[in-house]
Formats: sequence, C-alpha cells, structure tokens
Amino acid sequence: MSSTQNFARARRPEHKQQRREAILAAAADLARREGVQGVTLAAVAAAVGLAKSNVLRYFGTREEIYLALMMQEWQEWTEEIAARLDGMVAGPGEVAGPGEVAGPGELAGPGETGELAAVLAGSLVGRPLFCDLQSVLATSLEQNVGLEAARGYKRVAVGSLDRAGRMIAARTGLTPTEGFELAAAATTFAGMLWPVAHPAAVLRALYEQEPALARVCPPFRPTLERLIHGLAEGLPRLRPSANRRVVS
Amino acid sequence: MSSTQNFARARRPEHKQQRREAILAAAADLARREGVQGVTLAAVAAAVGLAKSNVLRYFGTREEIYLALMMQEWQEWTEEIAARLDGMVAGPGEVAGPGEVAGPGELAGPGETGELAAVLAGSLVGRPLFCDLQSVLATSLEQNVGLEAARGYKRVAVGSLDRAGRMIAARTGLTPTEGFELAAAATTFAGMLWPVAHPAAVLRALYEQEPALARVCPPFRPTLERLIHGLAEGLPRLRPSANRRVVS
Repeated sequence: MSSTQNFARARRPEHKQQRREAILAAAADLARREGVQGVTLAAVAAAVGLAKSNVLRYFGTREEIYLALMMQEWQEWTEEIAARLDGMVAGPGEVAGPGEVAGPGELAGPGETGELAAVLAGSLVGRPLFCDLQSVLATSLEQNVGLEAARGYKRVAVGSLDRAGRMIAARTGLTPTEGFELAAAATTFAGMLWPVAHPAAVLRALYEQEPALARVCPPFRPTLERLIHGLAEGLPRLRPSANRRVVS
Repeated sequence: MSSTQNFARARRPEHKQQRREAILAAAADLARREGVQGVTLAAVAAAVGLAKSNVLRYFGTREEIYLALMMQEWQEWTEEIAARLDGMVAGPGEVAGPGEVAGPGELAGPGETGELAAVLAGSLVGRPLFCDLQSVLATSLEQNVGLEAARGYKRVAVGSLDRAGRMIAARTGLTPTEGFELAAAATTFAGMLWPVAHPAAVLRALYEQEPALARVCPPFRPTLERLIHGLAEGLPRLRPSANRRVVS
C-alpha cells in the first residue's frame, strides 16, 4: 500500500463531510434568500456545483437536506435559550411581581411569564430559517424522508424540547411537562405565524388597499410573544390542583 | 327575441353556478380522501368530467378552488359555533365555578373557559377539511391566487373571526378583541396540529418503533382543547389593568 493510497483513503470521510456541509450551507443560503418552499433540489445542486444524482448520495431527498438543517437549528436554538434563560432574574420561589406569590411548581406571575415569553420569542425571531423550516415541517418536509432521517430528526427535536422544558421549569413556576408543552407550542407558533406575518405579494397589495383586512396579518414578534405569554399564564391554571380564588 | 333564446340565456348563469358547485364538491371529496396537498388540478378536472382548461374558466388556479372551499368552511364553522355557544350555560356576570367571580370584561374562571375551549375544539374536530385546508393555507393556498380571490377570502375570514370574537365576548369574560384573538388562534392551532397529529406513514412506523418519540405526535382533540383552554385562561391576565392577587 503506497502512501498516496493511504492519503486518499484517509481523506475520503473528511471530503464527504466537507461536501455534506457544503450542500447544507448552500441549501440554507438559498432558503434564506428565497424561502424554503421555493428551493428545488436542482437549485441546491447547482449552487454547490454538483449533479443532482451526486447530491442524492449525501441526502436521500431534498426534504432530508432541510430536515438536517432543522436538526442544526434545534440544537443551536436550545443552546441559545439556555444562555438567555441563565440571564433571567426571577427563579422559582421568588416573588415574580407585585402581589404575586410563585413557588416551585406553583403559579407564576405575569412578570415572570412575561420575561420567559420575551426570551422564547426573542430566540425564535432571531432564527428566520428555523421559523420558515418549522412552517413547512409537518405538511412538506416530513412527507418525503426516509425512516432513519426521520428518526435522527425526531430524536434531536424531542431532546431539545425536553431540555428546554427542564430549563423553563428550573427558572419559573411551570413544571417540566408544562415547560415541554410551552416550548413545543412556542416553536410551532413561530412556524404558523411566520408565513402569515410574511405574506405573498398579492396579500401585501390587498392589505394596502384594505387595511381592515390586515387584522389577519399580525406583526410577527409581538403576536408570537403574546401567544407564548398567554399560554405560559394559562397552562398552570389548568392543573387539577389549581384550586384558587381570582379576585379582580 | 324568441322564447327559446330567452330560456337559453336565463339558464346560462344557473348552469355556470351548477358547474362551479360540481367543481367544489369534487375538490372537497378528493381532499377528504387524499388530503388537500395530494390533489392536483388534473384530478379535480377528471373527477368532474371537464378539461383542465375548462375548470380554469371557473377558478383561476387549483389554489383558488381550495380558497373558495375554505370560505364555505369559515361560514359553516361560524354558524356552528353560534349554535354551540348558545348552548353554553355560563354567561358574563355569572359565577363560572366555585370560588370564581367573572363579570363582563373581567377574568373568567376555568369552568367557563373550559366550556368555551370544549365548544371551539369540538367545532374544529368535526371539520377535518377545514383543519387540513388551514394547515396549508399560508404556505401553499395563499401563494397562488389572484387579488380578487384573496380579497373575497380574507373578507369572509375576518368577518367570521369578528363574529366569533363578539359571540365569545357575549358568553364569557373575554373582550371582543380577546375573543377575536382566541378564535384566530384556535383555528390556526387546528391547522398546525392537524398534520402533526396525522403523520406520514414513515413517522407512524417510527413512533411504533420508538414510542418515546411520539411525545411530539400529540392526540388531536385533547391537545387542541388544552391549547385553547390555556390561552383563554391566560389572555385576560395580560391586560394592563389585570391587577390582582393569585392565591394558591
């Protein structure tokens, strides 16, 4: 075995990894410019200088490329909210606002849940690709992937939500299960609001002509934050044990 | 002008309307069986026995057909919740549950919001076509329609949500604006949960192999009802004037 052969063999997995990353980077770049739904496999292949058939050696389908990008986004998002939640002032057992008492696993107050909603909304607003991918995840991406790609993706998604749920519980009066629910809802809200808040040209023209119709085109960040905040306030009040009086 | 000519002229709009309705019925039928995203314009044309070009005389695009069906669904849904809300026991100013006091525009209690959530969730669960259409509305249907089709659709959608919001406010402690928000959120939740709760075959196989991953495949009705209930509880607590004490 010559040293040249050794070199060629050793470089192969490294090259494969480089090519995989180039495909992902090109797909992400195209999606950021044109929206995920507007990007074809042919466009990704052209951008990375490969034949379509060559791209398909690395990813089974166009949708598997975007599912792989979504995995990266989940991981980066979880890291980011870990850092952001560390910066939150209120912790469990602390008084969250005037006249409100929150203990571990007890009802949080609007101050605490408001801070949590701002953290979660902020982390999503800063990730347009995550929001765009989320908007077509269930109706498109998950419709055309293989079992192993789906498995890898779902493990990462569940792991991220689990970790987010535990972090939320450690910082607020929500339980880990409620934290998981809130994190899952927050990311899904982001996906559902993304295309609504970034409408097609025909709808932009319509809203300009009839501003009253723009009520169904709410601004992205405030609406996302309000939905998360409302749910964070409401979820703990659905506990069977949430036996309390509300005094106006 | 002969009476025959008169008859032919008078029948024309009637025939047009019949044909329009036949196209809508065929598109609805195909969507119920195969899912909205799986139905092509060619399939609709074949089902109704027309050439594609002939169908396009009635609707500008495949998406305009489904937007027209969505308009019908909004109108029927609003009628249904009007009837269902009439059956609700609690009204504004009535005591909604033990230890809870709710006045007009004041905080409702979990009993009242629970009943409201059950009404809204029930009305959506019984309309699978509405949920399916909602799931692809912003990312697909609204992407390929003309200005007038979009205008007609948005007027109906905003009108339905407005009416729903006022009906919710008349029956609960929520304001009309909160009612509008809750109705908009409820219908959008239904669209986002629909494909998640009805996953592709590859995901069904995966969840069977790894039940722990099915945490991200929640059951449709209970999850929808819980999200609506949580938000209905939380939204009034985000009012600037919601100055109150929460006692555990």
